[in-house]
Amino acid sequence: MSNPSVFSAESYFATQPPPPTLQTDVIGVRTFISKQAEQGRKVVLVTSGGTTVPLELNVVRFLDNFSAGTRGATSAEYFLKAGYAVIFMHRQFSLQPFSRHYSHSTNPFLDFLEIDSTSSRNATSEINVTPSKRPDLLQVLTAYKAVHAEGTLHTLTFVTVNDYLWLLRAVSQEMSILRRNAMYYLAAAVSDFFLPRQKMSEHKIQSGKGSLHIEMDQVPKVLKPMVAEWTREGYIVSFKLETDLSLLIPKARQALQRYGHQVVIGNDLHHRKHRVVLVYPSSLSPTSISSPASTPCFNHVPLSNLPDGTGSVEIDGILADTSAGQYTESWIEIDPSLAASGTKEIEEDIISELLRRHQSWVAAAPSAQ
Amino acid sequence: MSNPSVFSAESYFATQPPPPTLQTDVIGVRTFISKQAEQGRKVVLVTSGGTTVPLELNVVRFLDNFSAGTRGATSAEYFLKAGYAVIFMHRQFSLQPFSRHYSHSTNPFLDFLEIDSTSSRNATSEINVTPSKRPDLLQVLTAYKAVHAEGTLHTLTFVTVNDYLWLLRAVSQEMSILRRNAMYYLAAAVSDFFLPRQKMSEHKIQSGKGSLHIEMDQVPKVLKPMVAEWTREGYIVSFKLETDLSLLIPKARQALQRYGHQVVIGNDLHHRKHRVVLVYPSSLSPTSISSPASTPCFNHVPLSNLPDGTGSVEIDGILADTSAGQYTESWIEIDPSLAASGTKEIEEDIISELLRRHQSWVAAAPSAQ
Repeated sequence: MSNPSVFSAESYFATQPPPPTLQTDVIGVRTFISKQAEQGRKVVLVTSGGTTVPLELNVVRFLDNFSAGTRGATSAEYFLKAGYAVIFMHRQFSLQPFSRHYSHSTNPFLDFLEIDSTSSRNATSEINVTPSKRPDLLQVLTAYKAVHAEGTLHTLTFVTVNDYLWLLRAVSQEMSILRRNAMYYLAAAVSDFFLPRQKMSEHKIQSGKGSLHIEMDQVPKVLKPMVAEWTREGYIVSFKLETDLSLLIPKARQALQRYGHQVVIGNDLHHRKHRVVLVYPSSLSPTSISSPASTPCFNHVPLSNLPDGTGSVEIDGILADTSAGQYTESWIEIDPSLAASGTKEIEEDIISELLRRHQSWVAAAPSAQ
Repeated sequence: MSNPSVFSAESYFATQPPPPTLQTDVIGVRTFISKQAEQGRKVVLVTSGGTTVPLELNVVRFLDNFSAGTRGATSAEYFLKAGYAVIFMHRQFSLQPFSRHYSHSTNPFLDFLEIDSTSSRNATSEINVTPSKRPDLLQVLTAYKAVHAEGTLHTLTFVTVNDYLWLLRAVSQEMSILRRNAMYYLAAAVSDFFLPRQKMSEHKIQSGKGSLHIEMDQVPKVLKPMVAEWTREGYIVSFKLETDLSLLIPKARQALQRYGHQVVIGNDLHHRKHRVVLVYPSSLSPTSISSPASTPCFNHVPLSNLPDGTGSVEIDGILADTSAGQYTESWIEIDPSLAASGTKEIEEDIISELLRRHQSWVAAAPSAQ
């Protein structure tokens, strides 16, 4: 067995091949951004879905991260509704804004189309939408058509973690001309490990006898160069998913400390549909702006039954500074039954809070943008 | 590192836990089969899509096999068209019959719905299908409604290789009462490896430091017990996918020799949309039935530029008997440009050939069914 290599972001991009469509994708993004900049729109990059790690050169088997892409697809819709332009960078076949309402598995659209037999003597029969389904479809369709007419949604597709990393860097660099008007909402579930191209043949899976051994290297932490090099004062939102709730806030604070970005949104696996926590440096607290009166389910104080995460905690063998004064948490919680029935989506409140914070961030620019 | 265990099908089912929905699924399948048997319909089990191997108990990371499920979803439609009842057992979110024509990525249905603004003074506007899209949609929709009205399609969902194995055994056993009227069309891309539940905590992925090591065990070969124990004279079609074309026929013959089933359909990764080979024991050749005149692209002899696979070949360290007399191949090939444009689907010819062979199989029953 060979020793694992340690890849910095720099050595990663120096040794791993770019995806073949990168140049074309970058040109599309550049055109989109310049159009939005002309029209004075803020632009958000929303990443969504899981990444794969191919285990063979002829890709049949791969390691995958679970994510249907619900958070990203839903959030993109609320950003669009608020007037942002959205670069939606998602895993192929993961959920997308608008069409997400009509999953082929849970809400197949063929079920609410009807064939009008009264006009069957014509060359082609008419197809009608079931009346009970019409209002919902009309709402989705109206928003979808408006976004397409305005040209405010640009979709990019990735499959592997390598596609993702190359695209993320390229799009971030393109967006940097927007300075504080750019937001980065990194909701994709990215693999921590990958198989360097140079090791791929060596690691080829032995089928037909014995067991399977795979050895992988760590994916470099790209938030650091993203903050320091790829973007310029962009507003960066990262995500943490934990199954152990007591680690959520300490780990979120540790990420802010390490990478120096603006917000971590903490989810725990089993409650992420109705409860998240926003963790941010206290210096960025928009205290001068009053809380919105229209979101009654919104909490700015930790709920009493949740750990507050203060003190110091050992994470990955490092004693993390989690002093409460330096970081602030805002809990966002909605009624779980409303979330389960689809009556209310927590992303509506998340985006509403982020818009407020992004506005403060733009207003706090040292010089006019 | 522990030694890999060798699992027989028997020891697999004795040690791995059944999926929680198995009982409910079996009851649904039993009802479906008895209804079809009453109506004298043949029933085919179509498996489709890839399986996952969860690497952690809280499933975030998993090993996956690539498969969109095109072959299975397309084939299911042609079986339904031919009057078969179909149990469609597929990977969650993989393609399904009928809705497969309207992928959210490549052919989103929202694009061909229009809002009728002339009637906008009504409480709800009308939604119309774009006229140019109407004929195709009408055709799909008509077939979809007919299948639902007749109740000839039953859908089951799996995610992990463990779900798949338990479901396959249970459904096969339920279908065995149909005897020769049952066909099994095993198009799913099933993992060769899995992580036994008992080793899961031991194998928990170490995130945050160093590299990732995974060690997995081999999935038992279930075709053998499927032929010998789970089914009774059912017509079993398995699939082989190879990237090395010269191995395709020898491996297909080896599978028939080992497991004793009826047909292997051989695909090579890059040409599977327009060329496959059916390999079967020569004793099952339906020579008394003439070739269908209506399929001009159909070839019963190997194409001149393809290896004929005769002789003996070493596979997995075993010298395989590939004597040409014992096995016969039928190549099915369609014009690649018709396949690429979607004008013609190779599954139409595959199913047509299988129906003919299944009919011979039913007719050759030792006693009346």
